[in-house]
Amino acid sequence: MGKSAGGAYAAAGVDYDALDRFKRACQVAGRQTLPALSFHQLSEPAGVRGESAYLVEADDCFIAHVEEGLGTKNTVADEMARANGFRGYHAIGIDTVACIVNDMITCGALPAVVAMHAGVGSSNWFDVAHRGEDLAAGFAEGCRLAGAAWGGGETPMLKGVVEPDGIVLAGSAWGFIRPKTHRIKGDVQPGDSMIFLRSSGVHANGLTLCRKIADAQPDRYLTRLSDGMTLGESLLAPTTIYAPLIRDCQQEGIALRYAINVTGHGWRKMMRLDAPLCYRVDEPGVVSSLFEFLVGKADMTPEDAYGTFNMGVGFVVIVRPTDERRVLDLAQSAGLSAWKGGVVLDSPQGRRVDVPSLKISFLSDALQVRG
Amino acid sequence: MGKSAGGAYAAAGVDYDALDRFKRACQVAGRQTLPALSFHQLSEPAGVRGESAYLVEADDCFIAHVEEGLGTKNTVADEMARANGFRGYHAIGIDTVACIVNDMITCGALPAVVAMHAGVGSSNWFDVAHRGEDLAAGFAEGCRLAGAAWGGGETPMLKGVVEPDGIVLAGSAWGFIRPKTHRIKGDVQPGDSMIFLRSSGVHANGLTLCRKIADAQPDRYLTRLSDGMTLGESLLAPTTIYAPLIRDCQQEGIALRYAINVTGHGWRKMMRLDAPLCYRVDEPGVVSSLFEFLVGKADMTPEDAYGTFNMGVGFVVIVRPTDERRVLDLAQSAGLSAWKGGVVLDSPQGRRVDVPSLKISFLSDALQVRG
Repeated sequence: MGKSAGGAYAAAGVDYDALDRFKRACQVAGRQTLPALSFHQLSEPAGVRGESAYLVEADDCFIAHVEEGLGTKNTVADEMARANGFRGYHAIGIDTVACIVNDMITCGALPAVVAMHAGVGSSNWFDVAHRGEDLAAGFAEGCRLAGAAWGGGETPMLKGVVEPDGIVLAGSAWGFIRPKTHRIKGDVQPGDSMIFLRSSGVHANGLTLCRKIADAQPDRYLTRLSDGMTLGESLLAPTTIYAPLIRDCQQEGIALRYAINVTGHGWRKMMRLDAPLCYRVDEPGVVSSLFEFLVGKADMTPEDAYGTFNMGVGFVVIVRPTDERRVLDLAQSAGLSAWKGGVVLDSPQGRRVDVPSLKISFLSDALQVRG
Repeated sequence: MGKSAGGAYAAAGVDYDALDRFKRACQVAGRQTLPALSFHQLSEPAGVRGESAYLVEADDCFIAHVEEGLGTKNTVADEMARANGFRGYHAIGIDTVACIVNDMITCGALPAVVAMHAGVGSSNWFDVAHRGEDLAAGFAEGCRLAGAAWGGGETPMLKGVVEPDGIVLAGSAWGFIRPKTHRIKGDVQPGDSMIFLRSSGVHANGLTLCRKIADAQPDRYLTRLSDGMTLGESLLAPTTIYAPLIRDCQQEGIALRYAINVTGHGWRKMMRLDAPLCYRVDEPGVVSSLFEFLVGKADMTPEDAYGTFNMGVGFVVIVRPTDERRVLDLAQSAGLSAWKGGVVLDSPQGRRVDVPSLKISFLSDALQVRG
């Protein structure tokens, strides 16, 4: 992990090193279970471990599976509800689905069925008016936006594990890649174009730090940003769901070479692939009032900021330069703000993300996702 | 909910009424997302909402999806580790998989891929020696026992939502029913036989109450049971995984009419189906030292006990009387302890579970699982 980039986040209590070590141990143990797949007439394609979705290959399709959590964003909704009655749980429901499906689509799978996991510290959680209903309605809306059915879930009471007023929101989805040629394999070539898709805000990423920043403001989540919104409302903008763009590209026969859900590790995520490539960002896009505020208050260097938050770029697709225009048009038709963010280059010294206008370079040791 | 049966559990802080209300709200919102299935060439078969697994129908198979959580059982492992160094997390890993796959198989689906969700309150969770490694190894072992591949997962840090030393363990799985005739549909007829499969202990069910009981003992989890085991060790027996029996029955062409994972609501779960049937239990089985202890210390009536815990019966399959012998033999071959527990009878007054030898009758209002 890049020391500078990790600095602000580690200070907020998230130690990605310990976490990544455990994840790699799980990947090692997981590999030993692979012989079971043949009974189900499935196999694991090369290169799926460490990707954002787990993929198995069947006769006529791939099937993807994602288990993901919202993180701690719902605590912002709780505090806003207490502060001014703001009803944030509809957005939280969408966010929870978005976390799951935006990971799934990175391999080219379209989510078919989504399930919710909502673990509460006490049944009192359900006593607050509107909260449960808003969450359920938002989760359903997220599924609708993602083109998936909401197929079930689990709502355990976890006294002594979850904080008394807390809820752990997570879930899972499965979906198909069909035909198999729709798989996004990461066959990125120098010269490819990076299409940036705008985020609606922080999405569900970096919230531990956001909460710490809010704690340090006299008005906390009611602090006004330069655009007039409160910090709390701005943080609670529902996460953009990018599934429609992937679906539309597939239907138009556009091959996506790679897709990146920009979440933990911020823009460092852009160099997920092992290949020695440089992702040179020429148009980082406009920084919103929210990110200006967060970066300023946390006194983050540009490297800290872009190595932690999505900074306005929620999703990236990498395409052949000849497909660039059509992808931008499809994004616009789907109601997504998109632009050409940069280009992929050879990088014999190892993978990196460069943002020349911001003097940022993330080198390969700033992101380790494979065990 | 039956007042008597709910009594002990409600007193331990679990209010199933509020929970069930939210679940039903989710089911209503979930139904509105069903139109999405047709895009994926899927449909929802009648009668799947409220079942233990969510099922969709494809051309040549059904695909099942389960999202489930372990509950709070891992806190027992934490306390035992502190008390005498007992390493319980291998069992906890198996338990987590068992919760998921024992639900899935109730519809006749065999789990193909399982994912782990492990949300911690702080990265310190991973600093305790062996704990993460044991959990990973146990989860992999659970997958192996279930005949599934471990395909990924998520390990979020949830500061302020999960207790600082806590971990929320959950996960999801998907699997096939193929051919479609292997689906367990609940077409139970009067005269059918109930085959009981022995549990290894409490499994992951009723732990809130178990923890409360342990808190009231001077030696807490080190309290000796009449069989010489400590309470903690006994609670931490890994949950039995019943997937091999379902697989073997399918391979032998034995049609299972229904299958019940005996978890929350204890034996009340036996009347999950809406049909007006009586499940008459003639052989409730031997009550282990563990259950004797728990029921005695919590001063539970038989109705409380059997309406809360599995009381030695972890799973039930309902079969034609002519298949009874073969199922018992297959269970034995799979290393599972099984016996004929009872018989299904007509019950024009409504569904019920009767255990004449224990003078227990659970009537239909003691279990509501459908919205």
